[in-house]
Amino acid sequence: MKRAEVSRATLGRIPSYLEYLKNINRHTGNISATTLAKELGLGEVQVRKDLGAVSGAGRPKTGYPVEQLIEELEAFLGCGKKRDNVVIVGAGKLGRALLDYSGFADYGLEIAAAFDVAVEEKLWSNSGKPIYPMERFDDFCKEHPVKIGIITVPAAQAQQVCDRLVQNGIQAVWCFAPCALCVPPEIPVQYENMALSLAYLNKKID
Amino acid sequence: MKRAEVSRATLGRIPSYLEYLKNINRHTGNISATTLAKELGLGEVQVRKDLGAVSGAGRPKTGYPVEQLIEELEAFLGCGKKRDNVVIVGAGKLGRALLDYSGFADYGLEIAAAFDVAVEEKLWSNSGKPIYPMERFDDFCKEHPVKIGIITVPAAQAQQVCDRLVQNGIQAVWCFAPCALCVPPEIPVQYENMALSLAYLNKKID
Repeated sequence: MKRAEVSRATLGRIPSYLEYLKNINRHTGNISATTLAKELGLGEVQVRKDLGAVSGAGRPKTGYPVEQLIEELEAFLGCGKKRDNVVIVGAGKLGRALLDYSGFADYGLEIAAAFDVAVEEKLWSNSGKPIYPMERFDDFCKEHPVKIGIITVPAAQAQQVCDRLVQNGIQAVWCFAPCALCVPPEIPVQYENMALSLAYLNKKID
Repeated sequence: MKRAEVSRATLGRIPSYLEYLKNINRHTGNISATTLAKELGLGEVQVRKDLGAVSGAGRPKTGYPVEQLIEELEAFLGCGKKRDNVVIVGAGKLGRALLDYSGFADYGLEIAAAFDVAVEEKLWSNSGKPIYPMERFDDFCKEHPVKIGIITVPAAQAQQVCDRLVQNGIQAVWCFAPCALCVPPEIPVQYENMALSLAYLNKKID
């Protein structure tokens, strides 16, 4: 697999390539970037660039072998890998919405569990995911290969939760609390500022 | 008020300027961009640019009059204006999380109500916001100046909901369903793809 740095936009289109390819007859053998672009309503240059970042199998004139391209796109998204490496801290409405959100599977991701200080014993979410008391957190991280922590606690508790994540070897943080976190420089933090998204949309029509 | 197009990043910093200014003694009279930058840990050039986009009151040497700057920042964010112009369709966990999220107030925004086909009579959210049956939607839009619609229904229902929003004169759409919507060209749509955000973070540490 080619290891180019891919943009967020490219990553966003990969599930739609994969969905399209899986729905056509695989025995068609090859598919060209031109055909894919036309079928998905995308620019041809864009499709070539996207696929080139993920697969080295494209050939002039013949295009990409469909079976191989599917495998490469799946490998890129990490489909099939065991993916119990994401946890949520904060099992309020937002935390539970994320825990039960089915769209992560398109990217080969699955959230393993949620944790909350207000939970006294293990609960199950609507989709059957475990929600544990926060006391279980350190042990859970020892028993599972947790890599990403999602913070959905109020801003006032976010730093404390973040420190706990870092102490437990988390490698990346996705933060929904409206605050700025202090983390070691090697740990990427992605902030999801809901209010800012709405404010920005509002400004567009102001 | 100066009407420059502001970036999302600038917009994101405005609440922190406002919070800082409101917490200092307003009788200090003036404040310089240099002081603000130092106090908030931001670059001086950035602060000058941000404030310049919102206020024309800054003067070399003397800086910005604090009272006036507060007013201009507030006006920019629309604080104080009646803001019952945002509605949610889809009162599942995510819809209700957004409905009760208090962070919108930092940007002078408030969500007026949520609607859901599965709701049979008016309910109240935890924070006291109304959740109506979907049948009430058209009437609500006639009675309120609804400008922004938030879509938190499953992807399969999103286009139908979007059409209903557009029929009722909505001016912008914020879509959490993982799909592409068809809307008239003058209506901005902002997509919030939760799965993509997590996938992107995951790729960073892959």
